[in-house]
Amino acid sequence: MAFEFERLQDTSDSKARLGRLHTPHGVIQTPTFMPVGTQATVKTLSPEEVKAAKSQIILANTYHLYLRPGHELVKKAGGLHQFMNWQGPILTDSGGFQVFSLGALRKITEEGVLFRSHLDGSKHLFTPESVMAIENALGADIIMAFDECTPADADEAYARQSMERTHRWLKRCAAAHENEGQALFGIVQGGMFPDLRLESIHRTLEVDLPGYAIGGLSVGEPNEVMYDMLDRTADELPKDKPRYLMGVGNPDNLVEGVGYGIDMFDCVQATRIARHGAFWTPFGRENIRNAKNEDDFSPLQEGCQCYACQHYSRAYIRHLVQAKEVFGIRLLSVHNIYYLNQLMEDLREALRDDRYQAFRARFFDQYSV
Amino acid sequence: MAFEFERLQDTSDSKARLGRLHTPHGVIQTPTFMPVGTQATVKTLSPEEVKAAKSQIILANTYHLYLRPGHELVKKAGGLHQFMNWQGPILTDSGGFQVFSLGALRKITEEGVLFRSHLDGSKHLFTPESVMAIENALGADIIMAFDECTPADADEAYARQSMERTHRWLKRCAAAHENEGQALFGIVQGGMFPDLRLESIHRTLEVDLPGYAIGGLSVGEPNEVMYDMLDRTADELPKDKPRYLMGVGNPDNLVEGVGYGIDMFDCVQATRIARHGAFWTPFGRENIRNAKNEDDFSPLQEGCQCYACQHYSRAYIRHLVQAKEVFGIRLLSVHNIYYLNQLMEDLREALRDDRYQAFRARFFDQYSV
Repeated sequence: MAFEFERLQDTSDSKARLGRLHTPHGVIQTPTFMPVGTQATVKTLSPEEVKAAKSQIILANTYHLYLRPGHELVKKAGGLHQFMNWQGPILTDSGGFQVFSLGALRKITEEGVLFRSHLDGSKHLFTPESVMAIENALGADIIMAFDECTPADADEAYARQSMERTHRWLKRCAAAHENEGQALFGIVQGGMFPDLRLESIHRTLEVDLPGYAIGGLSVGEPNEVMYDMLDRTADELPKDKPRYLMGVGNPDNLVEGVGYGIDMFDCVQATRIARHGAFWTPFGRENIRNAKNEDDFSPLQEGCQCYACQHYSRAYIRHLVQAKEVFGIRLLSVHNIYYLNQLMEDLREALRDDRYQAFRARFFDQYSV
Repeated sequence: MAFEFERLQDTSDSKARLGRLHTPHGVIQTPTFMPVGTQATVKTLSPEEVKAAKSQIILANTYHLYLRPGHELVKKAGGLHQFMNWQGPILTDSGGFQVFSLGALRKITEEGVLFRSHLDGSKHLFTPESVMAIENALGADIIMAFDECTPADADEAYARQSMERTHRWLKRCAAAHENEGQALFGIVQGGMFPDLRLESIHRTLEVDLPGYAIGGLSVGEPNEVMYDMLDRTADELPKDKPRYLMGVGNPDNLVEGVGYGIDMFDCVQATRIARHGAFWTPFGRENIRNAKNEDDFSPLQEGCQCYACQHYSRAYIRHLVQAKEVFGIRLLSVHNIYYLNQLMEDLREALRDDRYQAFRARFFDQYSV
């Protein structure tokens, strides 16, 4: 059972499902959130801290690791797990999102994407085949197919063309993927057009894979548009395969996403907002710089069991952030990751008791978006 | 036995001594190195990491904490130990070195030092009395008297004037110090003039205190001048009181300092050089950015038991530093602090066996200054 998804329980009041994902580096309870370790490190944190914050799996970025330190070096180190000392499961994205984000610095052809490095301007070509070779070298448990992340404002003609290319690329990825120990996931695109997304799903499913992802959402469109897409399409993905909503998101997105039948999420927000002094509580997002925290000796979140809340006050963390001390960012990052992982754990418990809607209602009752 | 120094053993081949310093927050084996936590945090590290790197006591800076977050806030938090979650001993300096480093931004009078904050330009006055009130509020185990740190290039007339003022201020500090639970240390000055330093020692000893420090060294003078000063004066300090050499230093300075009879050292180098990618090994100082480390999968230092060396390769740490990832600085900081603490532990073992000179010879045989 190197890689297998067990669907443990469905819910009667939503499309949410409780599951268990077996990987070569351990079992993941789903639905789950994956912290992002772009450059083979979850920003500012040690692997032990990421794990203590209840993370089950982390994500790393193929584009960044290909450019620096290079996938061959990581392979020589014994793969990503060994290189970065993370013994749990890892997922690598395909670089698709990153190279398309380069804008004027990249050119898309049927062959692949020619792009310039954001580091030194050097020219590189990503093809489905080269990306598979890179992801095989990195050695993550789950690897993503090379896709084109269709922009939120793409018209229907472009969204179709882009979606069709993504499917041709998926077939090339599946043919090029050389390591059976790594689970390849396909990616559904289709822009903001429900019919295209449904078509994308059916064509993606032509390639039988251990898991499928929904890409091209949370790319600038309003939450309502994303939810509408998910509502109309997510449950069309196979019930017995894990479903991964890429690059999403905030706490409210996670709660909603689970209700549409999503099993996996990733987002940089937990560590990114920490670098700006921000953190989540059940009441929404706050900023530690706020003057009211100056002499507040209570934790970031009452009752939270994370390392930051167990040992440090808002007053101390505010001091660290004001003084530009890294340890302040570390404490906020730990809290934010723990917060999302605890939210998912609470969600899983609600699914076990078949009370998703009650959980959702209570969450939005407290949480200010 | 709230505060007491036990002189356990002298050495026959040097002025080095083995001791034990009892403080309200625990026992410190001497000679010892104290990592610096300027703003109530040892830069980038958690208290647990500082402790795991074998630190017995840390230093915090009165000047910085007075300006931000303010000593009254720290007092309200329950003192520095509680505020920053460090349960071991703490020493606070007096701000003397910092305000004198402000140059044109400060004015010295008999009353004290008028200075402008480096943060916002606001005006402040430090007097022996106000500094004692601040250090009492911060609540460290050891607090330093307010002194004038004489510049390395001061002429004899100025060095005398400055030294005499420091002694008048020491008497005011002793009179103003209000918390018996905190041990006040006096500071010897005298510039680069051995006779002035000897006079300073005798006048400092007029105030009976639980410990004495040597200030105004390692302020720009060559190592040889510092060693000459220490050789001529350090052992004139009472044998049964701890001797603290302020702001020193590098590994070679520590090995030499112990031989002159110093028991305590502090320095920001361990964390500062880490921020520049540098680290120490028994062979000297290296930089992780060096191309030879690119595919070196060995640890920073073979055989080192620190967290960084136990789990990460030079190749990984180099990648993190090149990619400007904080975790790289953390790993180098952990290693550097551990390195100095282990060096002191090894030195203590050598003193126990009365083989200081053999230890020193072997150290300098390997170490390139």
